[in-house]
Amino acid sequence: MEPLKKTARTQLRRSHLRGHFDRETVYAVLDAGPLCHVGYNIDGLPYVTPTFQWREGDRVYWHGSSASRMIRAAEGADVCLTVSHLDGFVIARSAFHHSVNYRSVMLFGRAEKVSDPEQATAHLKYFVDGLFPGRWDTLRPMNEKELKATTVLSMAIEEGAAKIRTGPPVDDDEDYALPIWAGVLPVNQVVGTPEPDGRVLDGVEVPDHVRNYTAG
Amino acid sequence: MEPLKKTARTQLRRSHLRGHFDRETVYAVLDAGPLCHVGYNIDGLPYVTPTFQWREGDRVYWHGSSASRMIRAAEGADVCLTVSHLDGFVIARSAFHHSVNYRSVMLFGRAEKVSDPEQATAHLKYFVDGLFPGRWDTLRPMNEKELKATTVLSMAIEEGAAKIRTGPPVDDDEDYALPIWAGVLPVNQVVGTPEPDGRVLDGVEVPDHVRNYTAG
Repeated sequence: MEPLKKTARTQLRRSHLRGHFDRETVYAVLDAGPLCHVGYNIDGLPYVTPTFQWREGDRVYWHGSSASRMIRAAEGADVCLTVSHLDGFVIARSAFHHSVNYRSVMLFGRAEKVSDPEQATAHLKYFVDGLFPGRWDTLRPMNEKELKATTVLSMAIEEGAAKIRTGPPVDDDEDYALPIWAGVLPVNQVVGTPEPDGRVLDGVEVPDHVRNYTAG
Repeated sequence: MEPLKKTARTQLRRSHLRGHFDRETVYAVLDAGPLCHVGYNIDGLPYVTPTFQWREGDRVYWHGSSASRMIRAAEGADVCLTVSHLDGFVIARSAFHHSVNYRSVMLFGRAEKVSDPEQATAHLKYFVDGLFPGRWDTLRPMNEKELKATTVLSMAIEEGAAKIRTGPPVDDDEDYALPIWAGVLPVNQVVGTPEPDGRVLDGVEVPDHVRNYTAG
């Protein structure tokens, strides 16, 4: 796959060794968890809204209520979509070298609305089944009113970069002689036991697509 | 405490019952975990950078390399600082009513640099000790070069709102008759076992401030 192009927006000014432009790396970060933060402007002022993203090939998608501020402001506009996974606290021998292990991606582009209702439905199915494989076909089908109330936005993955830090702290040479504990405190996202909502019909068990979900 | 003022930027257009303007609720979300996403503009285009935030009273702080793009663009500029904690997947009987349990805060304002080096140092100590109580005084002290390379930004917590969803899915009345499993799949952030970096001196144990850290 062609790597993402380096541009003024994606050139890493610092820690350039942490930057990755190859699509394999960028896609792995996007696919590792749905939470993202979409940045957009209203009257020239920045807003950052958390939502879920999913990837289909070389495009990233997200959705929301057609009435929502984020959807209305982002449609047809320049956005920055950022995905961040926190992997650990990097605990060093000096305050300065404390850091964080993480995997993040920033994507830049113009958000486009998926206008065709059938296509929008297909994308939503891809999203639901991406989280919980096979769930879509078990659900009460989406109706016209719901589809109208939902907007799917998407963006080509062309401009962006991943930034990743792994490993132990990097202390100043002379600081390794100090009797200070240093290392990594790992952080993980985990799912708990599925909690039925109290109105599940008798005999309906937790489906495998819920039971087997693994976060991050 | 006085609640945050409602403004055009913080008025919730949808799901207004999920909105909270009281400082107790907003502060609890900020204090529940350091990861935040800062939105800012460069040449009128939006950027979203993940970083850590901490709160001191009625102000929120974050820091970065003085040379970093985010710090240089945010200083003195309008920003949106968003904190999001994902608490669970809300799994419903129709695609439309699938949702997410979360706690989030959006804060709006102008980022101000902490110009006085002594004050900046005090804020960084507050940050480190907030994560790992007492750690600052065990570290090799910060030197002038490091302090110069670090910029602390802050913002008054005046304009913003928390948005929180909890509880089971809310399905359409008639859908509760369907034999579809529905409920919540909880998501938690957990820390693992501290991993020493391999150069910790003999006899230096994992300190309590690391061992007792609890995420989220």
